[in-house]
Amino acid sequence: MSNQAWGGRFTDETDPRVARFTESISFDHKLFEQDVAASIAHARMLAQVGLITDAECAQIVQGLTEIRAEIAAGVFPFDVAREDIHMHIEAALIERLGDVGRKLHTARSRNDQVATDLRLWVREAIDGIDARIQGLQRAWLEFAARHREVILPGYTHLQRAQPVLAAHYALAYVEKLERDRGRLADCRRRVNVLPLGAAALAGTSLPIDREQVACALGFDAVAANSLDASSDRDFALEAVFACAVVALHLAGWAEEWVLWSTQEFGFLSLPDAVCTGSSIMPQKKNPDVCELIRGKSARVVADLTHLLVLVKGLPLAYNRDLQEDKRPVFDACETVASCLELAAVVVAGARLNAAAIAAGLDRGFLDATTLMEQLIGRGIPQRTAHELVGKLVARAESRGVTLAELTEDELRAVHPELGPWVRSTLGVPRAVAAFRSFGSTAPAEVDRQLAAWTERLTPASAPSPPPATVP
Amino acid sequence: MSNQAWGGRFTDETDPRVARFTESISFDHKLFEQDVAASIAHARMLAQVGLITDAECAQIVQGLTEIRAEIAAGVFPFDVAREDIHMHIEAALIERLGDVGRKLHTARSRNDQVATDLRLWVREAIDGIDARIQGLQRAWLEFAARHREVILPGYTHLQRAQPVLAAHYALAYVEKLERDRGRLADCRRRVNVLPLGAAALAGTSLPIDREQVACALGFDAVAANSLDASSDRDFALEAVFACAVVALHLAGWAEEWVLWSTQEFGFLSLPDAVCTGSSIMPQKKNPDVCELIRGKSARVVADLTHLLVLVKGLPLAYNRDLQEDKRPVFDACETVASCLELAAVVVAGARLNAAAIAAGLDRGFLDATTLMEQLIGRGIPQRTAHELVGKLVARAESRGVTLAELTEDELRAVHPELGPWVRSTLGVPRAVAAFRSFGSTAPAEVDRQLAAWTERLTPASAPSPPPATVP
Amino acid sequence: MSNQAWGGRFTDETDPRVARFTESISFDHKLFEQDVAASIAHARMLAQVGLITDAECAQIVQGLTEIRAEIAAGVFPFDVAREDIHMHIEAALIERLGDVGRKLHTARSRNDQVATDLRLWVREAIDGIDARIQGLQRAWLEFAARHREVILPGYTHLQRAQPVLAAHYALAYVEKLERDRGRLADCRRRVNVLPLGAAALAGTSLPIDREQVACALGFDAVAANSLDASSDRDFALEAVFACAVVALHLAGWAEEWVLWSTQEFGFLSLPDAVCTGSSIMPQKKNPDVCELIRGKSARVVADLTHLLVLVKGLPLAYNRDLQEDKRPVFDACETVASCLELAAVVVAGARLNAAAIAAGLDRGFLDATTLMEQLIGRGIPQRTAHELVGKLVARAESRGVTLAELTEDELRAVHPELGPWVRSTLGVPRAVAAFRSFGSTAPAEVDRQLAAWTERLTPASAPSPPPATVP
Amino acid sequence: MSNQAWGGRFTDETDPRVARFTESISFDHKLFEQDVAASIAHARMLAQVGLITDAECAQIVQGLTEIRAEIAAGVFPFDVAREDIHMHIEAALIERLGDVGRKLHTARSRNDQVATDLRLWVREAIDGIDARIQGLQRAWLEFAARHREVILPGYTHLQRAQPVLAAHYALAYVEKLERDRGRLADCRRRVNVLPLGAAALAGTSLPIDREQVACALGFDAVAANSLDASSDRDFALEAVFACAVVALHLAGWAEEWVLWSTQEFGFLSLPDAVCTGSSIMPQKKNPDVCELIRGKSARVVADLTHLLVLVKGLPLAYNRDLQEDKRPVFDACETVASCLELAAVVVAGARLNAAAIAAGLDRGFLDATTLMEQLIGRGIPQRTAHELVGKLVARAESRGVTLAELTEDELRAVHPELGPWVRSTLGVPRAVAAFRSFGSTAPAEVDRQLAAWTERLTPASAPSPPPATVP
Repeated sequence: MSNQAWGGRFTDETDPRVARFTESISFDHKLFEQDVAASIAHARMLAQVGLITDAECAQIVQGLTEIRAEIAAGVFPFDVAREDIHMHIEAALIERLGDVGRKLHTARSRNDQVATDLRLWVREAIDGIDARIQGLQRAWLEFAARHREVILPGYTHLQRAQPVLAAHYALAYVEKLERDRGRLADCRRRVNVLPLGAAALAGTSLPIDREQVACALGFDAVAANSLDASSDRDFALEAVFACAVVALHLAGWAEEWVLWSTQEFGFLSLPDAVCTGSSIMPQKKNPDVCELIRGKSARVVADLTHLLVLVKGLPLAYNRDLQEDKRPVFDACETVASCLELAAVVVAGARLNAAAIAAGLDRGFLDATTLMEQLIGRGIPQRTAHELVGKLVARAESRGVTLAELTEDELRAVHPELGPWVRSTLGVPRAVAAFRSFGSTAPAEVDRQLAAWTERLTPASAPSPPPATVP
Repeated sequence: MSNQAWGGRFTDETDPRVARFTESISFDHKLFEQDVAASIAHARMLAQVGLITDAECAQIVQGLTEIRAEIAAGVFPFDVAREDIHMHIEAALIERLGDVGRKLHTARSRNDQVATDLRLWVREAIDGIDARIQGLQRAWLEFAARHREVILPGYTHLQRAQPVLAAHYALAYVEKLERDRGRLADCRRRVNVLPLGAAALAGTSLPIDREQVACALGFDAVAANSLDASSDRDFALEAVFACAVVALHLAGWAEEWVLWSTQEFGFLSLPDAVCTGSSIMPQKKNPDVCELIRGKSARVVADLTHLLVLVKGLPLAYNRDLQEDKRPVFDACETVASCLELAAVVVAGARLNAAAIAAGLDRGFLDATTLMEQLIGRGIPQRTAHELVGKLVARAESRGVTLAELTEDELRAVHPELGPWVRSTLGVPRAVAAFRSFGSTAPAEVDRQLAAWTERLTPASAPSPPPATVP
Repeated sequence: MSNQAWGGRFTDETDPRVARFTESISFDHKLFEQDVAASIAHARMLAQVGLITDAECAQIVQGLTEIRAEIAAGVFPFDVAREDIHMHIEAALIERLGDVGRKLHTARSRNDQVATDLRLWVREAIDGIDARIQGLQRAWLEFAARHREVILPGYTHLQRAQPVLAAHYALAYVEKLERDRGRLADCRRRVNVLPLGAAALAGTSLPIDREQVACALGFDAVAANSLDASSDRDFALEAVFACAVVALHLAGWAEEWVLWSTQEFGFLSLPDAVCTGSSIMPQKKNPDVCELIRGKSARVVADLTHLLVLVKGLPLAYNRDLQEDKRPVFDACETVASCLELAAVVVAGARLNAAAIAAGLDRGFLDATTLMEQLIGRGIPQRTAHELVGKLVARAESRGVTLAELTEDELRAVHPELGPWVRSTLGVPRAVAAFRSFGSTAPAEVDRQLAAWTERLTPASAPSPPPATVP
Repeated sequence: MSNQAWGGRFTDETDPRVARFTESISFDHKLFEQDVAASIAHARMLAQVGLITDAECAQIVQGLTEIRAEIAAGVFPFDVAREDIHMHIEAALIERLGDVGRKLHTARSRNDQVATDLRLWVREAIDGIDARIQGLQRAWLEFAARHREVILPGYTHLQRAQPVLAAHYALAYVEKLERDRGRLADCRRRVNVLPLGAAALAGTSLPIDREQVACALGFDAVAANSLDASSDRDFALEAVFACAVVALHLAGWAEEWVLWSTQEFGFLSLPDAVCTGSSIMPQKKNPDVCELIRGKSARVVADLTHLLVLVKGLPLAYNRDLQEDKRPVFDACETVASCLELAAVVVAGARLNAAAIAAGLDRGFLDATTLMEQLIGRGIPQRTAHELVGKLVARAESRGVTLAELTEDELRAVHPELGPWVRSTLGVPRAVAAFRSFGSTAPAEVDRQLAAWTERLTPASAPSPPPATVP
């Protein structure tokens, strides 16, 4: 007879190739803290409702605590024949406690157990990622403050468009990251619902108290339908999706800074510490960390694809396919956490080359739109004003000069309204100063927002550092 | 010179192949209602702050209203040379109003305009999908009520596991759909933020009032950073992700009902109206609607992939790549809306074959776990009880009988505790009646939840029907 | 009774919502040419083996030919109630011919019919794409010839690395595209296998001759297993994958040319004809075609995802989910065909700004690796040589000079071997001239390859233009 | 100064967080065999062309051989600070050999080195997968032979359609797998091209002989363009795509056998060795291996997505993002190899429940299409015949009888042609016997194909077993 926990009805041994193929201990060992915590809460509830005695409960809690310590210390033996972390911990408990250990799995199944463990893990991962997002937001605020006087060319289609303050640019990423925090917080509410007690799929005839377990483990609610609870992986999909959006935000920024680090742009100096060199070309200093952050977005998108394809077409309730949910969840959360950490290092260490940027601001007619808006202010319809300035640009470009360098005759040739006053509105600094709309790069507006964000993101007391690992 | 709106600086005509390649009117014409609504709100604000006169505003509003009516009536001429819906509408306005029409595009850009239009569209689509989800939930509640007495075999690994009430099964899908509603509602909050006024990327020097526009269009907030506002497509990603999860919920259910419709399962009769036949095999009645719902989940997952790959590695702010965002957004929302609609038709018309299901309930030892729990109640450790019942199952299976049909000797041979009392706990109806945990298939629990959901989902007054199309 | 072709066993009418949901005529009408061609070949075979008379065959061929002409002329009525293109054409034939028309569907099913039609479409699409790839390759060869004297900075990590000839750069894309042709050709062999005659899934008891049909339709082989033939969609997956790689090749190039078109790089002038402007910023000239080509790669990747997810977990043989295979196949092929067409327009019209490029070649120490190789030639181990040149670069960078501008003392301070000879090897033109390995940017090597490709890609006679549409 | 190989121009140390983030040794250590083999071939070529002496070459070969042995024995120290497998091996060589070791990296870069290593790995992986596919094909042939007399219901839309021989069913998978072999073989040709000698991106000025290296390493050709060679990852995309199609073939089959293993179908007995039980439900025997094979297809699809997204939008030539290519390549190949291996175990051990299958063959009117074809043979048009048989089916279904059990009156009521002869053509065995088309389930046809495949797949001599691991 098989020596598996479920071996009663089986006559043949599992094929060792099958054991290797079906095992999950090589990755779900990551859940050991969560599994022990959930088992302790479960055991206490069993004692509370009288399914085990208080003495048995104490033995179980003591045994689990020891096992957790052994795993944490790296001295616990793992064996693929024992399938998964749940079986490892329970078998170790039975080895220690005999029949008392055999009572722990009362009124639960691995189906609800693993769902519980994974939700606990994801909840912690979300908190760890949220802390790292805030860390990166703070790095952006410092970047904004550090470069408060720098004017950057703003781009659309990667063509120079209008000038923006570096601080305005930095705050754009603070906004994106804040939406990420919102998505993670919304996801966390749906993660933080207890499946334990759904048992295999239908609940149990034993008199359990799920509210108590939920309370002990910090869950906000108890899952209301056992079939749903044991099959639901929405929380995993949603967490990985939220991670994917974070990763894509970082990838867009990383792309931008790879460009800014080129000799051609020359906007940015990255510290040597976040660059690497070439094994063959002695002069190279490559923005590897930014490239890898960009590249790792592919991995997180793939983790999301993994889960979406995995659950496609599965009938209720638990199917073994779902064992494969853990790898992409772990990978997405850990990848995003490390990318956020490194992004904060890069942003904190980066220095804009203010002089080089300023020297190039005359290129690209960044003041053209402001001039057009001046004409609108003088009563010229926008489309007409747009066309007039377009003609000025064509003229200036053909002569290789800025708009401010056009002669009075050249101006007037385009439209009689274009008099000498035009020159006093041109030039990038004047263009920046002219902005006034809410959310624009107007200096006062940017200062106001920077102050508000700084207030909001500065912890009242010293912030606790984010945990070293996720979760 | 080019006759495009932006043609001032250009000397060559656009290549007609380029016009065909770059046009978006073939799909973004769907945004015409939103574009007109946003332009009317914009014009009123321009008048309010004095950038146009009240008379000009009235002309513009009148012109836009007429144009909208023409498009709705199908008499408005479209032309790929005019690129997109925005240019079509503005050009038609200028044709009507001349210089007054040329003033509408004051203090805005297509970048913020299209973002505004698309957010309005997505907001309406979310509302339409939400209404359809509720419609499907109500169909499930009616299904539950209609089959209140039916006991189904519950499955894990598609193997018979434990019995569940059909109503319990139906409520599992109500729960899944309710999470979908929660995700859509959370997404809607992030969708419902006004980008208009971000202009091209940096805001404007003109004295606009974005709060007024937001208020007129029903937005909850104004986007705070112009660079972010014009580049942000998180809302599209998030809406399509929420749709993908809906689609996958439906795909799992559809898979299940394709199985249940087989001759082998025979659980389900689908009305002829939602089936089709074969062009060659005269006897076929195929569950095509369920198959297509399952298949269309692939399309929505692909729409999500489309958006994720599209935004990967794009620097700030607007890039033309983003024009391609609309197709997957439209497709995902419309596909999911139609799948939900048809799913409700299928659920409403389906009839469980109660007699056939009941006749087969003796197969699969659906009462084995309940017996194990009885042994646990008598003090036998779970693992031991599991093994004892496993031996009973092996015995019964080898004899081709149910557990209840084992002899007293056979029971006692496995364990002395297994006496005649065992028989009085066996059988599927008794197994169902024994459940008691919160969220389980216990009849009282299921009744309680069914009543609560019915109360919750029955509108106080007659519900307004969902809109005919999404949005 | 239903009036569907398969209505014999049905008592209820199809729900009109179901008709709309399940129809495919809105997209599979694209297959009309293929469907008629396959039906004609099928009818001729039926006559040949005696299942219909020659006179019946002649009537059918005549009827189908007329129907094809009507569809091509746009005067054929489509109706969602008739489901798909196959039913439309057959019903029209029956309207014309009565019982003779009712004989066409002998010994076939829509399952093998649609697989045949789609394979014919894909085969033509592959040929159309192949012709466009060659067109783009020729544009690259002309680009290479046109810029034969231009030296570009080559990049790794987007940092200046070593100099490359513009022609060498162009040939890199010719190579990538040639691999694409190879993949398409391999795919075409697996596409070009006839499924017709597999009937529903098991073949037929009627005495058909599949070889004859294969021959008439230009198939290379007949599918050997009916269950496989009716369920196989490998050919669609493979064709769309090959398209996705083409799309990604184009996306990488498009990204590069978006960069090169920036004011900062300034390497490239794109003709106005492939650029567009801004509705608000008068000075903008945006590389929209390149951006859209980059963006459309996301769409093709999504089409592939669509198919991969669609077929996941489908049992044998045909399932209705497969109806959804056509949209991504059509979309991927058409998207890639149009991207290739436009890419050829862009490459043909682009002009490298040779003077600006040359003026910047001194930046980035593009000659450093060549100097290192000189030191290796003088017996210094590579790692040591790498480090020595690294020190020279650091010195030169701190002084803001090129390597050639270092003093003799500065050279010798790094290593005694570094004498005046160093200067005579430095400078980008000398670095280019020094290359010699096969496949390198050595001018003679590039000339040789350019000549070989030109020979290979120049048709003996005037090439026939690619078809206007795909297929 | 940094102690990295590329440290000459750097002044700051790499941040340890950066070292952890950028390292690849944790996964690219898998390439050690390939890296050593390629370095040995490279060193021999350097000696041949005179860039190092024969004595130096001998030392290098000896050193590399020892290092390879140490890694294989698990005694080689890895350190994330040394980045990747290339640097580990080279540094170990320099520790042993000093300046001689410093010469190995002459005329190569990590860019071409890693591309070479990965191609070698993929080539071996393809061969290992191909061997496993053949193993699975042979298992299917044995399955076919073992169940030669079994008739299965064939399905479309998962509804019973027409009867098929179990051997015919088995051969459908042999066909699918054979296409997989074809794709892998085509891919292998494009994999087997040597990039080494492309150096960083532009080739080298040193007199290397790439043909010799290609020959030594078994490459079919030398990559012709250095920019292309160092940036090309088509081979990785294509190999992973080919794996994804294999995985999806297996997933469809696994889905089918999960269904067949249900109590409801009951077609299949899987050996205990490939099933597992439940931790809570004592009676369960779950087809876990099939479920995991189905689930793991999601992982391979995700690996493909990973690569597609990774390369999207990367300009030439090497970018650090590409470091992330290895994980999905390794994972896809290894996952598919293990799924194939287990699939062969499952197919070899599975037994069709012939009696149960035969007992159910009367359900589903599997003979209806054959009857229709008889009517066609008697001159009734197909559409008419289809409708007549449809009416018979409706009649039989309403009475709960088979077609053969309809009375003569019932037959004649539908059509006068339907006389007593009808009965002698009905019944599933007669329906199977009636098939005759090429590729159909006609017994003689299936025998012929089975014999041909058996001949083709039986090795002349004893086959060498596939390698224990991939590659």
